[in-house]
Amino acid sequence: MFSGLSAFPLTPLNAGGIDEPAFVRLIERLVAAKVDSIGALGSTGNYAYLSIAERGRVARLAVEHAAGVPVMVGIGSVRTRDVLALAEEAQRAGASAVMLAPVSYQRLSDKEVYGLFEDVTRALSVPLCVYDNPGTTHFTFSDELHGEIARLPNVASIKIPGVPNDTIEAKVRVERLRALIPSHVSIGVSGDALGAMGLNAGCEVWYSAIGGTFPEAMLAITRAAQAGNADESLRLSARLQPLWQLFGEYGGSLRVTAAAAELLGLVEAPCLPRPLKAVDGEARERLAALVNELALS
Amino acid sequence: MFSGLSAFPLTPLNAGGIDEPAFVRLIERLVAAKVDSIGALGSTGNYAYLSIAERGRVARLAVEHAAGVPVMVGIGSVRTRDVLALAEEAQRAGASAVMLAPVSYQRLSDKEVYGLFEDVTRALSVPLCVYDNPGTTHFTFSDELHGEIARLPNVASIKIPGVPNDTIEAKVRVERLRALIPSHVSIGVSGDALGAMGLNAGCEVWYSAIGGTFPEAMLAITRAAQAGNADESLRLSARLQPLWQLFGEYGGSLRVTAAAAELLGLVEAPCLPRPLKAVDGEARERLAALVNELALS
Repeated sequence: MFSGLSAFPLTPLNAGGIDEPAFVRLIERLVAAKVDSIGALGSTGNYAYLSIAERGRVARLAVEHAAGVPVMVGIGSVRTRDVLALAEEAQRAGASAVMLAPVSYQRLSDKEVYGLFEDVTRALSVPLCVYDNPGTTHFTFSDELHGEIARLPNVASIKIPGVPNDTIEAKVRVERLRALIPSHVSIGVSGDALGAMGLNAGCEVWYSAIGGTFPEAMLAITRAAQAGNADESLRLSARLQPLWQLFGEYGGSLRVTAAAAELLGLVEAPCLPRPLKAVDGEARERLAALVNELALS
Repeated sequence: MFSGLSAFPLTPLNAGGIDEPAFVRLIERLVAAKVDSIGALGSTGNYAYLSIAERGRVARLAVEHAAGVPVMVGIGSVRTRDVLALAEEAQRAGASAVMLAPVSYQRLSDKEVYGLFEDVTRALSVPLCVYDNPGTTHFTFSDELHGEIARLPNVASIKIPGVPNDTIEAKVRVERLRALIPSHVSIGVSGDALGAMGLNAGCEVWYSAIGGTFPEAMLAITRAAQAGNADESLRLSARLQPLWQLFGEYGGSLRVTAAAAELLGLVEAPCLPRPLKAVDGEARERLAALVNELALS
């Protein structure tokens, strides 16, 4: 399951809590588009803002409506006890894999992060994806630490934050990591602006935040890259440059993706948990025009 | 209550969860030492690692055993809904004040942080301390934002991360903030190595992590500063320099303070929630020698 396009849907909220019908509709869109896997409760799915019970419910809904498409579930939490409880919930829900970021309040040491993955992988019966996202965890993995963690049982993939925005440098970066991890562990790129670049550089998966809301456009990029048509994948990605630009200006993809889903009526507004706010004002107007221009739907 | 020494105890854990007898003993030590207030469930009290129910229980234990010493309770959480629930719990427990840091998973904007404090202060019936700790929240307050938030109802104090380690620069720093906030809002220094410097520079409170475990030594520093004896307070603080050094080397005070409490038998070992680990090996040996040399108890 750790290849192609892994699409990360929002977990939309409304006044009553989780907006379950809207979440199910997002899952059904991904199934209809034929994504390769679904990443429920990633950063885009606001896992860090939900209770253990809410996360269990979302995991079950995702698997129930995925029509056999493999579902990976985010189990990150600052406390090992809670990560273990979340892993148990995800497995009971029928997740095909789990994803774990070393989320922190107190900045973690390498030893503490290794200990976390050691404790969690020991308790799993499904594969695990190591989620490397320094922007939210404030932990920076060395490639050497990735190599050590990748040797733990059940580790099957690493989600890296991005690659250099240059064809040669991106290849060098992926090859350096590849040399340090076992061959059965796949490397997945995230950072949507760099999806095409990452796939062309040898990443087996694109873990895509925007792909959870607009799967068709991201599948076109993915299929071009998988077919060895690097130029076409880069051209399709470059077409979305104004969107990548907005992500850059507004602290990542979440607040923009949420606003796009609200604008299209896929979810109620506001769909993000307070204190988070989707982009508004002038940025929201630019986004509305963009969604229209790019025929995103 | 926002003056003098505010001491922040650990919330020790053991195999069964919260080690309640050990926590009560820590509170009783603070009462016996006559600290000016107690900060339960600060960063040192591991608030970010505990469930809402655990935090309610800890808040009640703190107030019950504080023998009338005012107790401030940390209510930080990434989600506004949970902050409001924690505020309600803390007030029901009898907290004299609450303390709120803009904890984040997705890095917050100024507008989002202001919105958080607006939502929470509106719901309070006790004073609030704004907890500015960029090392754990990854949010940097401008003095102007502090000024705006300090004008919200119920805001009574600001806990700043530290002051420059220079008598003149520390005064300039405190005076700049003082000029932007209403006079009824006190300024408290944290960062234990800078407690004396901060008090001498005009901070009304020292929010002290190490003071939660070793109140006597920190009270001596506080009382000297309060009596206008700046040199004596700096001398007493300089004596603890090897401890400040260890804090610097091991990512802050928590892992060192926890190890010191373990070494003295105040709490069971390990007392921190996994994946956090107290300092061990050579650093723990240095610490044991220090605790002895400095006659900390």
